[in-house]
Amino acid sequence: MHMGEISLAAIAEYWSSLKPNENGLVPAITTDHSTKQVLMMAWMNEESFTKTLQTKNVTYYSRSRNKLWVKGEESGNTQRLKELRIDCDADTILIAVEQKGEACHTGDKTCFDGVLVWSEK
Amino acid sequence: MHMGEISLAAIAEYWSSLKPNENGLVPAITTDHSTKQVLMMAWMNEESFTKTLQTKNVTYYSRSRNKLWVKGEESGNTQRLKELRIDCDADTILIAVEQKGEACHTGDKTCFDGVLVWSEK
Repeated sequence: MHMGEISLAAIAEYWSSLKPNENGLVPAITTDHSTKQVLMMAWMNEESFTKTLQTKNVTYYSRSRNKLWVKGEESGNTQRLKELRIDCDADTILIAVEQKGEACHTGDKTCFDGVLVWSEK
Repeated sequence: MHMGEISLAAIAEYWSSLKPNENGLVPAITTDHSTKQVLMMAWMNEESFTKTLQTKNVTYYSRSRNKLWVKGEESGNTQRLKELRIDCDADTILIAVEQKGEACHTGDKTCFDGVLVWSEK
């Protein structure tokens, strides 16, 4: 586990431990580090994974635009990385962030605020 | 939004609002309803989505075994559905569950306990 700076070599080693899908992407689940809420799910390729760990400005890979996507670069609603984990199967990333503004492009706080399909109460 | 029972017709309508990947699957992020922790990420097809909402016993689709996977059917570590949401892009499911025992087959409480890549502190 690393605190502070993490070397490019260490980042590359962590990425090589992951199992990307056929498009070279790994799903990343993003949570708010203070409220613990799940904010969104997006995808990372090796470059976005590396940039996220180097810059601490969370960067995804946009499948619709086929390019790196620095979260908030247009809206200003950036995400500052607080923690990054990999799951037991090495095919999912979990990150905790400090979210500026809202996470969702709809203006909702999270991308899951819109459609509540079912709730016990 | 539904509470209590939800009809098959309503379930089918929610599924048809989703955008499954080329294999007919949608990623499902599973959280613990009391601790808010992210427990795991797995996949659902239409049948597992339907069974989950009908039975409230969370059921995924196992990509490695190519079949429905009632979580905990072998280990006893079942997940009782508390809430199910769909994200703004209609390509991710978020569920909250009551987890019996540990979520992870490694014996960890969550599937993200093993590899902490980086933390601010």
